[in-house]
Amino acid sequence: MKYGFALFCMLVSPLLWAQNDGQLQVNGSRLNDTMQHMHTFGENAQGGSDRVAYSNHNRVAYSYLFSLMLESGLMPGVDVAGNLVGRRPGKIDGLAPIIIGSHIDTVPNGGHYDGIVGVMAGIEVARTLQESGIELDHPLAVIAWSNEEGGKTGSRSYAGTVEERELDLPSLGDKKIGEGISNLGGYPDRLAENQRNPGDIAGYVELHIEQGAILDREKIAIGVVEGIVGIKRWYITVKGFANHAGTTPMDQRQDALYATALIVADIRRIITGEPGRQVGTVGRLDVSPGAPNVIPGEVMFSLEIRDLDMDKVTRLFDKISVSAKAIAGANGTNISFDQYYESPATPTDDGIKALVQESAEALGLSTLHMPSGAGHDAQSMKGIAPLGMIFVPSKDGVSHAPGEYTSPEEITNGANVLLKTVVGMDELLQ
Amino acid sequence: MKYGFALFCMLVSPLLWAQNDGQLQVNGSRLNDTMQHMHTFGENAQGGSDRVAYSNHNRVAYSYLFSLMLESGLMPGVDVAGNLVGRRPGKIDGLAPIIIGSHIDTVPNGGHYDGIVGVMAGIEVARTLQESGIELDHPLAVIAWSNEEGGKTGSRSYAGTVEERELDLPSLGDKKIGEGISNLGGYPDRLAENQRNPGDIAGYVELHIEQGAILDREKIAIGVVEGIVGIKRWYITVKGFANHAGTTPMDQRQDALYATALIVADIRRIITGEPGRQVGTVGRLDVSPGAPNVIPGEVMFSLEIRDLDMDKVTRLFDKISVSAKAIAGANGTNISFDQYYESPATPTDDGIKALVQESAEALGLSTLHMPSGAGHDAQSMKGIAPLGMIFVPSKDGVSHAPGEYTSPEEITNGANVLLKTVVGMDELLQ
Repeated sequence: MKYGFALFCMLVSPLLWAQNDGQLQVNGSRLNDTMQHMHTFGENAQGGSDRVAYSNHNRVAYSYLFSLMLESGLMPGVDVAGNLVGRRPGKIDGLAPIIIGSHIDTVPNGGHYDGIVGVMAGIEVARTLQESGIELDHPLAVIAWSNEEGGKTGSRSYAGTVEERELDLPSLGDKKIGEGISNLGGYPDRLAENQRNPGDIAGYVELHIEQGAILDREKIAIGVVEGIVGIKRWYITVKGFANHAGTTPMDQRQDALYATALIVADIRRIITGEPGRQVGTVGRLDVSPGAPNVIPGEVMFSLEIRDLDMDKVTRLFDKISVSAKAIAGANGTNISFDQYYESPATPTDDGIKALVQESAEALGLSTLHMPSGAGHDAQSMKGIAPLGMIFVPSKDGVSHAPGEYTSPEEITNGANVLLKTVVGMDELLQ
Repeated sequence: MKYGFALFCMLVSPLLWAQNDGQLQVNGSRLNDTMQHMHTFGENAQGGSDRVAYSNHNRVAYSYLFSLMLESGLMPGVDVAGNLVGRRPGKIDGLAPIIIGSHIDTVPNGGHYDGIVGVMAGIEVARTLQESGIELDHPLAVIAWSNEEGGKTGSRSYAGTVEERELDLPSLGDKKIGEGISNLGGYPDRLAENQRNPGDIAGYVELHIEQGAILDREKIAIGVVEGIVGIKRWYITVKGFANHAGTTPMDQRQDALYATALIVADIRRIITGEPGRQVGTVGRLDVSPGAPNVIPGEVMFSLEIRDLDMDKVTRLFDKISVSAKAIAGANGTNISFDQYYESPATPTDDGIKALVQESAEALGLSTLHMPSGAGHDAQSMKGIAPLGMIFVPSKDGVSHAPGEYTSPEEITNGANVLLKTVVGMDELLQ
């Protein structure tokens, strides 16, 4: 049956090629139909998606992907981590697989594009290969990783970095992570079986929406991802002295919020004080006691710095730390820093990056080389496999909200670049 | 009996005078014993006071004050607002009374000095007058106003400004204000009977702890209060755009918290930019959405400005408003201002101020003329009676906390100044 269908496609495909300047291309209209169908699984009244990881929406969507994979020449199967993996054999025995991955879970009231584009395009790429009768040398796997939004649990099971205690943590839905893995058909106590070592995977590629506004603003079709930025996060506490706002003269105040305001402004100065695409954010800030008539005695705020170069992240923090201590001291306050999170920078593979660039060029698509400021499943492949990422525009940069949008044409462009990149990787990675 | 006791005192008092360089003085040791006894009513495990307005602690303390007033030649009575009023007749018929007032209610887990010093010293002043056989021309009333901490309800009933809806508001304890008034023996639906008009009160004087650190730091015994500062409060909202902290370049951010940080720093610059004792405080600040990895989309913060000169308060706010709009605009954010509270400035009477100064001088006590940054019952007398206030030091400026402290000697000094001031007012206000 499979070969019969492939044969049929081999006869039809020259027609498709003719329509597309001789290029092998995906069926964009079909791809976007499958994108639309995914709305079915968890769309809420605000038009957003509640298909959070491990939910029943997530599980029912797997049934749809299961049948779609079957139609696309992919052998579907759930693994111990609740990942849905569609596999296609390769021509040459003993080669490690090429993996196309992304995720279909969303944040609560999230959008319909973050992650989903990568999975649906991956399946469409496999289907196009099948229809075109193209057999790769490497095996190919298209994976919908589980629980990306709640901690990349599925892809991290490949890296072997999921700790046992995580299984007892709450997920973004109503289940603990361990229970959630079971709800998707996995076996949380057997995650170790998923662990991959260097050499087990030939290469990894992920198509994703940018989740920023750069491509959309610049009207560029394809982002060639240079890597996923490293992240460090701190909680910073400034302690002054809470006092009566009416009876304490201005020059006798140890106002933790005033000192913090100077520090927040100073952080911006330092972050933007050298060239580059580093970003620094103070996103949370709690004032205590927090009454209009009491001078703030304590402020706790978050600081996050991201860059492709971890040394730069560290260097910028050191500058901030020195400067903030001086500001705190000059205002009668004490400051302390507590780093609580670090995600190392993950550069993409130069060879795959070049393939993405060439593929876009061949399709006549404009490109921009850029870091990924957001985290992705691709990071989990660091040290295991050469990895690459392809970005398509996000309208107005909106992400993790019902307003997420990438046009059908932009999605099709991304899928076509993914297709050509995978074909190129098949040759490159031998 | 009363006359008999007065006669006895007239015989004894020359001895007391002799001990005190010929000055009429209160019995400081007795006064401080009564201060200590007040701890009984509502002291908690942390050593603070839970004698919140309208509580049973408040009511039981009234029983003690009732007997103390009886011993001090004051006829005690509860009025419709639940104030405890101790009255002493004057020599000249038809003169309006001089009132000494303050409060005995505390904030939850408050201190043992805020308000209490003024009431206990007032009773001690009456007792001293009685023991010394001194009859004033004016009637004298010593009043423990009800619910100072929860909105000055008792003293404001004299001004006729307690609105009916307030009676349904929660007090700082477990009762609504109306219920609380009943619990102290008052009749909340008859508050109108308390209203006084100009001329009904000859003069008002209140002794209070400073609730700031100025007198304590400068080692000054007596604060001659120039007035109670006016207060205006605003809620200010800065709206930017919440976005992904990893994917939004620094120059494309509309970061509501960054703009706010610049504004908070700017407020300090403007408040301290002209001479005077005005204060400006940003005490509350809420960041939304408030996640370390999301650029803040909205910040709401409070602004409070206090000064004896309301025009100055308004002028400073106008400057802040113009400057903040410019800062907000330059950072891609919108700003709006919502004034939600105003308490007009209340200057003290020049004549009474001079009496306080002279009284302290005669007692060899150092003085400082200063505004009251905190609100007091005395404000309620604005427009009804000439008013004055006397401050004594607060250790380290601590207020509204178990650590409130004013030494027995400092309290005695304050009571002696109160005594001389009242005697002086009796002459001045005819």
